Amino acid sequence: MKKSIGAKTIVYPTPVFVVGTYDAQGRPNVMTAAWGGICCSSPPCLAVALREATYTYGNLMQRRAFTVNLPSEPYVKEADYFGIASGRDEDKFAATGLTPVKSDVVDAPYIQEFPFVLECRVIHHFPIGLHTQFIGEILDIKVEEEVLGEKGADIQKVKPILWAPDSRGYYGVGAFLGKAFSLGRELLAKK
Amino acid sequence: MKKSIGAKTIVYPTPVFVVGTYDAQGRPNVMTAAWGGICCSSPPCLAVALREATYTYGNLMQRRAFTVNLPSEPYVKEADYFGIASGRDEDKFAATGLTPVKSDVVDAPYIQEFPFVLECRVIHHFPIGLHTQFIGEILDIKVEEEVLGEKGADIQKVKPILWAPDSRGYYGVGAFLGKAFSLGRELLAKK
Repeated sequence: MKKSIGAKTIVYPTPVFVVGTYDAQGRPNVMTAAWGGICCSSPPCLAVALREATYTYGNLMQRRAFTVNLPSEPYVKEADYFGIASGRDEDKFAATGLTPVKSDVVDAPYIQEFPFVLECRVIHHFPIGLHTQFIGEILDIKVEEEVLGEKGADIQKVKPILWAPDSRGYYGVGAFLGKAFSLGRELLAKK
Repeated sequence: MKKSIGAKTIVYPTPVFVVGTYDAQGRPNVMTAAWGGICCSSPPCLAVALREATYTYGNLMQRRAFTVNLPSEPYVKEADYFGIASGRDEDKFAATGLTPVKSDVVDAPYIQEFPFVLECRVIHHFPIGLHTQFIGEILDIKVEEEVLGEKGADIQKVKPILWAPDSRGYYGVGAFLGKAFSLGRELLAKK
């Protein structure tokens, strides 16, 4: 039996995207955002939605470029801090001891210690309501060599973090359940 | 050391959203989409991006409403099938034995057997490239009583599925890693 819980922003999984930008003075900043995901295959694009009040919003409007850094499980504390503090008040790289690296393809910094980094240029932005969505064309992905897989990375080596918006819990990736475009074939109508 | 792997649509986690719509004849259809996520807190909105070639695209343009049904782990085969077959050619509910239920708040069907359902009306759509993004305002969420949590649902009871676009593998949710807006507090600058 289903029960109505109202109009809320809950879905699973929700990502933990650490968005890297430069501010007007060229200082690197990062913030954690959970509202986003891939939004187009060609050109390859990723969407991230931010409140106008964030420091990153201003950086994005000015620089039109960002990185998305995926924290691995050992960096869950840093990822959480990046979502609590503002770059207006704090140097988040200094506070965590993490290392900003200037991207070679976009005007934005990435985090050296995080295993998986997307480098994006903003091609559109749309105000939706409290959040404005930025559409970033993915220009390159940089991956630590030890987490590389056959066609990208190995998710079980990257150990990315998921978030549950209702309980506000962080989770890891669990067991392999099967292969896509394969498991469901037996249900296809016999032709 | 980071290695460039090129401009690809890879990020983790990627969701497994089963999108429910009615076609022009009022027949219920579902398709699986991995490009999407929450995109605004107020109004509460979720984005899903689809190719124009899909049957669901036409349904969405006409009906301006959809559901997002989160499969639990036991339905991974059905979720995969929903991403392989087209509603133009097959009755996906008949093929899987799952039950369409007419939403009481939007003009779209949901899947009775799936534990977590969002009901959305389309408030915007934007062509980005190969994919068009549909922004759905979340009007209600319906959750099976046995997976309810304190402030929504319990992600470990819902057992949602994640997808890895590069390896095309489905995964479950893993271990609890900590609480958001809490773990990172110790890194905040002392004021």
